[in-house]
Amino acid sequence: MRLSRYYAPTLKETPAEAEVISHQLLLRAGMIRKLTAGIYTYLPLGLKALNNVAKIVREEMDRSGALEILMPAVQPADLWKESGRWDFYGRELLRFVDRHDRESCLGPTHEEVVTDLVRHEIRSYRQLPVNLYQIQTKFRDEIRPRFGLMRGREFVMKDAYSFDKDDAGADASYWGMYEAYARIFKRLGLKFRAVAADSGAIGGSFSHEFMVLADTGEDTIVACPACDYGANVEKAEAICPPAGDLAPCPAAEKIATPGQHTVEEVAAFLKVPAASVIKTLLYVADGKTVAALVRGDRELNEVKFKNLLDAKEDLRLATPEEVTAATGAPVGFAGPVGLSLPVYADRELALANDWVVGANAADAHLLHVDLGRDVNVVSFTDLREVAPGDPCPKCGALLDFTKGIEVGHVFKLGLKYSKALNATFLDEAGKEQFMIMGCYGIGVSRIVASAIEQNHDDGGIVFPPTIAPFEAALINLSPKDETACAKADEIYAALTAAGIETLLDDRDERPGVKFKDADLMGHPIQLTLGGKGLARCIVETKDRRTGEKGELPLEGFFEAFAAWRAGVRAGWGLE
Amino acid sequence: MRLSRYYAPTLKETPAEAEVISHQLLLRAGMIRKLTAGIYTYLPLGLKALNNVAKIVREEMDRSGALEILMPAVQPADLWKESGRWDFYGRELLRFVDRHDRESCLGPTHEEVVTDLVRHEIRSYRQLPVNLYQIQTKFRDEIRPRFGLMRGREFVMKDAYSFDKDDAGADASYWGMYEAYARIFKRLGLKFRAVAADSGAIGGSFSHEFMVLADTGEDTIVACPACDYGANVEKAEAICPPAGDLAPCPAAEKIATPGQHTVEEVAAFLKVPAASVIKTLLYVADGKTVAALVRGDRELNEVKFKNLLDAKEDLRLATPEEVTAATGAPVGFAGPVGLSLPVYADRELALANDWVVGANAADAHLLHVDLGRDVNVVSFTDLREVAPGDPCPKCGALLDFTKGIEVGHVFKLGLKYSKALNATFLDEAGKEQFMIMGCYGIGVSRIVASAIEQNHDDGGIVFPPTIAPFEAALINLSPKDETACAKADEIYAALTAAGIETLLDDRDERPGVKFKDADLMGHPIQLTLGGKGLARCIVETKDRRTGEKGELPLEGFFEAFAAWRAGVRAGWGLE
Repeated sequence: MRLSRYYAPTLKETPAEAEVISHQLLLRAGMIRKLTAGIYTYLPLGLKALNNVAKIVREEMDRSGALEILMPAVQPADLWKESGRWDFYGRELLRFVDRHDRESCLGPTHEEVVTDLVRHEIRSYRQLPVNLYQIQTKFRDEIRPRFGLMRGREFVMKDAYSFDKDDAGADASYWGMYEAYARIFKRLGLKFRAVAADSGAIGGSFSHEFMVLADTGEDTIVACPACDYGANVEKAEAICPPAGDLAPCPAAEKIATPGQHTVEEVAAFLKVPAASVIKTLLYVADGKTVAALVRGDRELNEVKFKNLLDAKEDLRLATPEEVTAATGAPVGFAGPVGLSLPVYADRELALANDWVVGANAADAHLLHVDLGRDVNVVSFTDLREVAPGDPCPKCGALLDFTKGIEVGHVFKLGLKYSKALNATFLDEAGKEQFMIMGCYGIGVSRIVASAIEQNHDDGGIVFPPTIAPFEAALINLSPKDETACAKADEIYAALTAAGIETLLDDRDERPGVKFKDADLMGHPIQLTLGGKGLARCIVETKDRRTGEKGELPLEGFFEAFAAWRAGVRAGWGLE
Repeated sequence: MRLSRYYAPTLKETPAEAEVISHQLLLRAGMIRKLTAGIYTYLPLGLKALNNVAKIVREEMDRSGALEILMPAVQPADLWKESGRWDFYGRELLRFVDRHDRESCLGPTHEEVVTDLVRHEIRSYRQLPVNLYQIQTKFRDEIRPRFGLMRGREFVMKDAYSFDKDDAGADASYWGMYEAYARIFKRLGLKFRAVAADSGAIGGSFSHEFMVLADTGEDTIVACPACDYGANVEKAEAICPPAGDLAPCPAAEKIATPGQHTVEEVAAFLKVPAASVIKTLLYVADGKTVAALVRGDRELNEVKFKNLLDAKEDLRLATPEEVTAATGAPVGFAGPVGLSLPVYADRELALANDWVVGANAADAHLLHVDLGRDVNVVSFTDLREVAPGDPCPKCGALLDFTKGIEVGHVFKLGLKYSKALNATFLDEAGKEQFMIMGCYGIGVSRIVASAIEQNHDDGGIVFPPTIAPFEAALINLSPKDETACAKADEIYAALTAAGIETLLDDRDERPGVKFKDADLMGHPIQLTLGGKGLARCIVETKDRRTGEKGELPLEGFFEAFAAWRAGVRAGWGLE
């Protein structure tokens, strides 16, 4: 493609609307434009990057034996009522009525539609397994869409759904997808990690997230430097020694703590470590108020707490009004003693007694609290978030903490949707059985953004070669010089014929503008032709990732270029 | 692909929901499934056909210099209000509010979005022309969706939009798209015709429809057998000699015509030809009632009438109540004499006098009416539909009438959207000018259906090789015979390596089932292996289009196959 005939409007200024670097650079490099909140148009460059990701995803899905279909964006409410999600999905499900007043929605996911499809087609175990996938535009009405393609309202996903006749088959389907995902992210040239993720009611190890590692990631990942353990912090188990017998502690005693609301304030005021104070958190779970206790220097892991409660909806912190109604005290003075709510404690709290807790009275705390003696705790379980210093649950080495962006998720669904929608088949014995399902998502448009979050510098985007809209930029410094143009055309034609997508900058612009645009757009390979180099019969090269510059002779160019290009790609871990 | 591992659930019975043949066969061949009214899931075979069409469309759009982008499905109401279409589009525009109560819609077309995009980017004539296209899923809330992919609510379209600095450029963009479309339909192996179409207010020859010829088409096309003239019947001019002087006719006379409502009844009752009677039709145009007159043996062309009136909304026939209110008579007795409405006459009516017309009184007509003498006619213009027997407006030969399915439309928009949305640029003189636009649509999913409407037989679909999900079916009649399987695998591998998409029927099914499924799915090339043929060292061949069968020797198979395949493709007009 010749840049003079292309549509890639770059911006000099960083648009005010963009908070994160991928959003800023996608706008500045002329790859996307905002239509309305969380909804973007892909310009030619952005669409090429999106399609490059989709192509690799498609190839690996096909290789895995999954079959591509295309399901609709508009879905009837009936199916969502049948699965029970019409009531539970919340306002992220955009609902509307059509001209005949039929309730409908814009699909954020397709479990219902695909289960409805196969329940009408599959009758026998002989037709199983089947794994159907699509690459399709989805809609999720995020309350606060932001971060460009990282969290848009309209976005492109690959979603796959497997149907198996038994657990062994479902597990094989699951691990087949896991392997396909690992191949996909490797081929995309991204540094990634597959981590165990929370799988809610399903349990076991049948949920993994694929994380692109980036400092700007919203997810925290723990990984063991010594073994292969890795997990989303939501899922990571906090190791705790078994509780032993405890020495008795003095009777509880109320003490004035005027204006001391936070654990840090209370600990400082009482001159005790924060680890001696219990944090009492009131949550509303499916409409009921409950209390969770963690050590003052720990954080509650809401996902663990939600799973413990088997709550249908996400938990929410009680409002100040609800706290006062439940405890009789303002926020900051809640405590478990005498509380008429179910109280759940992190298991670490069973290792000691003599705790400081809120007194359920304004400006007061209790000393010498023994949870076993003074409180009716429902259970002591793992409720806290792992933290630096925690050991690996598999091997005991200290865990590493990194940030990641979730770009893929494999999930064993089990019978959830097949039961709800009555998707059955006849097994070998002629008996009716529910199909065992798995679902597997990849955020195609999010991958483009996360590739930039992981790979950028002050000059702009640093695209991996397999994602880059153009692997090579060919900059003609002398677009008015016939010899330079002829040589540029010759190289351009040869690169294109070799299947290397090349953007020829043939614009009548200053060299500085051309170099800046090439850096901004992130072409992994830069070739510069013209000026003094041409007189010396060389092409200048630049590896966008390392910034390393070099020269290749015009004579015998293509052989030397192929070797140099292989080196650039090897730097990305690509063949 | 091996059919044993594929998902192509064929149906023996024709589903009751399907009225037209393409819909029936798409369902029966396991290509699509209905999710809800007018909304379909593409199964693997259907998606492959859709993608094959999209690929050719994309290649030819790229070749024409158009640049691919991807615009959103969800669009803000603001832009539609700015263009004025929010009020005029009607209920086919599916509207809703998002969680923040912002009015939005599902895009049935993207003139507003694309004009909004370029008005923010393009400042100078130097940036023009630009032609942006996308292949995207659209939604139109049809009141009565039917005919499967022919007229769905959710459908895939290619839409392109050109922006030019002057009329000459806009015309060049238009004809560039026209040529690209002609290449596309030729490469798709379809019998088609580009015809002049109604272009409403733009006028001139700047609207062409691309019609796939099929007896089941909803559109009537006229084409000249002697010259290159072709037009949608909506657009075709009805040739009329100039009016000369007329001999005076007797004074108008009222006559009883009890119970004679239709032209045929009145003509028979009065023993005159229908061509002596005037049909008076009352229409409501943008809220006002008007009358149109055509000869009794002619049909009014509503599009011509709408354009004459420059009406914003589609015309509708007056209700019986409205007819009685305007004429004082029941339906069937309306006439132009004494009518206090604007009266428009087809120009053919100026060629004669002494007409029979309705008397605006129950059971009565008038004889001897002279429109020039007795009626205040607003204008005599071309208002009737051409009919068999009419001459070509270009060369005078008798026109042919055929049926077609509209699959593409090229349209010069002019300034309509650039004015409404203020999309301007600075010209060479530094003066602000409106961009001149064109829009160009292709119904990608509709092409799949229309290919079937044009090409099918009792056995099922007869796909052109470039649209067929698999160009070749390779039927192994002896899937339990090791020699047959090895040979089938060998041929399958070679065809696949040659880029020929092949479906290997390796199922443990009876030969009759395999042949029936292959015919139903419409693979253009059928190869059969096994049984007695294998003993004789031959592969049986069948050209799905002609039904012609043959044999190719296993020895030297590929050379012979390539030659035979070239012949099959040549039969489709393909290289």
